[in-house]
Amino acid sequence: MTEAYAAKVSFDLREGEIAVELPQRFDASLYFIGQIRTPWKRREDCPKNPREGGETVCTIVIDPRWAQGLQGLDTASHIVVLYWMDRARRDLVIQAPHHYPERRGTFALRSPVRPNPIAVSVVRLLNIRSNELSVVGLDCVDGTPLLDLKPYFASTDSVPDASVGWHAATKR
Amino acid sequence: MTEAYAAKVSFDLREGEIAVELPQRFDASLYFIGQIRTPWKRREDCPKNPREGGETVCTIVIDPRWAQGLQGLDTASHIVVLYWMDRARRDLVIQAPHHYPERRGTFALRSPVRPNPIAVSVVRLLNIRSNELSVVGLDCVDGTPLLDLKPYFASTDSVPDASVGWHAATKR
Repeated sequence: MTEAYAAKVSFDLREGEIAVELPQRFDASLYFIGQIRTPWKRREDCPKNPREGGETVCTIVIDPRWAQGLQGLDTASHIVVLYWMDRARRDLVIQAPHHYPERRGTFALRSPVRPNPIAVSVVRLLNIRSNELSVVGLDCVDGTPLLDLKPYFASTDSVPDASVGWHAATKR
Repeated sequence: MTEAYAAKVSFDLREGEIAVELPQRFDASLYFIGQIRTPWKRREDCPKNPREGGETVCTIVIDPRWAQGLQGLDTASHIVVLYWMDRARRDLVIQAPHHYPERRGTFALRSPVRPNPIAVSVVRLLNIRSNELSVVGLDCVDGTPLLDLKPYFASTDSVPDASVGWHAATKR
């Protein structure tokens, strides 16, 4: 772990949280292919989830190297955005997030704290101009590194009646 | 690029496909946290998409290190699965896939060929036993490396009326 990384990551464990030892080596590597521009400059300013962000328009800027790859994406109404949550620690298996303080497994949560901090957000595409996309539905901090964009296919990506039992119970 | 990687990747370009020079360095790294077991041993045996796989049950095996992170995920009806498509080249911006031979930008396609070959699949969860999940809805080759599991929230992940214009046009 680099010093820069260590400095960015908070090492405080909340009560009941469990950390594991990280593997000694990585298995694969990523390119950052662009950047997400949002009105939220600090993590604590961000909406709790995309719905809370309301109709806020954010901008996705693709590096010129990859800009040709956008060809044809303007015909999609919605896009799957993958981005890197680079300020999160990666070693927790049980966590107690601020908003849902009951302890749960990392994979039962959408928390940025996970072994591979890749976020998946579904956004509505407003337009594409050159290498910039205007979208609605992001909740990340300004400057977040972009990993991928994919067209959203309702046939395979949309499950309107899906449920998450633990989450439904918190709202009762 | 390692020799092993080069050997796995096909360097044939189809007509009209455009490759770019990859960046000189990577920006972030991943841990493989488990493996996906499917009945499809070779890429050419895999269904074209998760719908084509029908009701085939696949197994996701999480490494023991991360198994505690599954706690609470059993209350989710559907899961977002992220996995690494490790046999794909990463440098194409315009491609002509076998199934949709018209040339399109990489980000307008769900092809494994992309700068960061991370697949996103929505699966139906049947059950979790210890560190193994039985799911329906995958279409990848046996042994595919697992990157992440997340609960699927219909409120933010489901857009039933989303459309992809170029794809709809191919079916007319």
